[in-house]
Amino acid sequence: MQTLFQYNWIVRDEWYHWCENLSEQELLKPRSGGVGSILKTLFHIADVEWSWIQSIQGKPDFQEDFEGYRSLAKVRALDARFRADIEPFVRGWDESLERRIYTQQRMDGSMEDLAWGEVMRHALAHEIHHVGQLSVWAREVGKTPVSANLIGRGLADSLPGRKA
Amino acid sequence: MQTLFQYNWIVRDEWYHWCENLSEQELLKPRSGGVGSILKTLFHIADVEWSWIQSIQGKPDFQEDFEGYRSLAKVRALDARFRADIEPFVRGWDESLERRIYTQQRMDGSMEDLAWGEVMRHALAHEIHHVGQLSVWAREVGKTPVSANLIGRGLADSLPGRKA
Repeated sequence: MQTLFQYNWIVRDEWYHWCENLSEQELLKPRSGGVGSILKTLFHIADVEWSWIQSIQGKPDFQEDFEGYRSLAKVRALDARFRADIEPFVRGWDESLERRIYTQQRMDGSMEDLAWGEVMRHALAHEIHHVGQLSVWAREVGKTPVSANLIGRGLADSLPGRKA
Repeated sequence: MQTLFQYNWIVRDEWYHWCENLSEQELLKPRSGGVGSILKTLFHIADVEWSWIQSIQGKPDFQEDFEGYRSLAKVRALDARFRADIEPFVRGWDESLERRIYTQQRMDGSMEDLAWGEVMRHALAHEIHHVGQLSVWAREVGKTPVSANLIGRGLADSLPGRKA
């Protein structure tokens, strides 16, 4: 679990860095698909990751409104705050947590039991999916996207099991 | 590991189904970003997943050429063949395999040691990333993309650890 979250955090930080070379207008410009702009996507990724991990722990959640975060600096600061909240939980993850149950209320009011392991994988896949969208939009603005490679990032030490 | 591969296979099958409602011209049309068309992306996802899993096992690999697979039916048939090859390996995955070493030759001829666990996560993140690209292109052709949700797909039984 740690490996894929660490991968996401590294890639996300590279996207923030990548965004430094784009105008605020391009960062906020409405685009086809996803949540609609490059910066809103990064905001959404950080918000959703944090919200799920807070929720399964029974910690308070709230829906941050993007209108209050329409600059790269503000999204980065929010993300740093969120990450400090959730990183200890991710680093402390072990197999005993996989099948704990989180009961969520669906939009229609009905209840749904989810395993924590499902929720964590949902959150990490959610980020990779949205980053794929960023990569298309990067080409639209004539720039090379951040690499999506997981290999070559020195992540072997984060793998499950004992180090040799 | 099984959970995220199963997620990918379910989502990929839904994309094949989604493609049935698109003309061959739209499936093959060059698009911005990624490997350039919807069908080539699906071919690329299946090819890359299979190639990595074959390679770490020391099994023969070869570079399939998309030119021979320019129809939905051909890509689906290739994928089915590939999946039959690799599914037993994925289902048999356990923690003892995480840190086995696969030595690959880089493009420049130098050698690189990768942990099997890194390679497997690289392959699964690779698919989710490319599917994010498909979701943007889906909107460009005026259609709703396949859901990227991992929750709600009945995947809890595939999680690591003992069932309750």
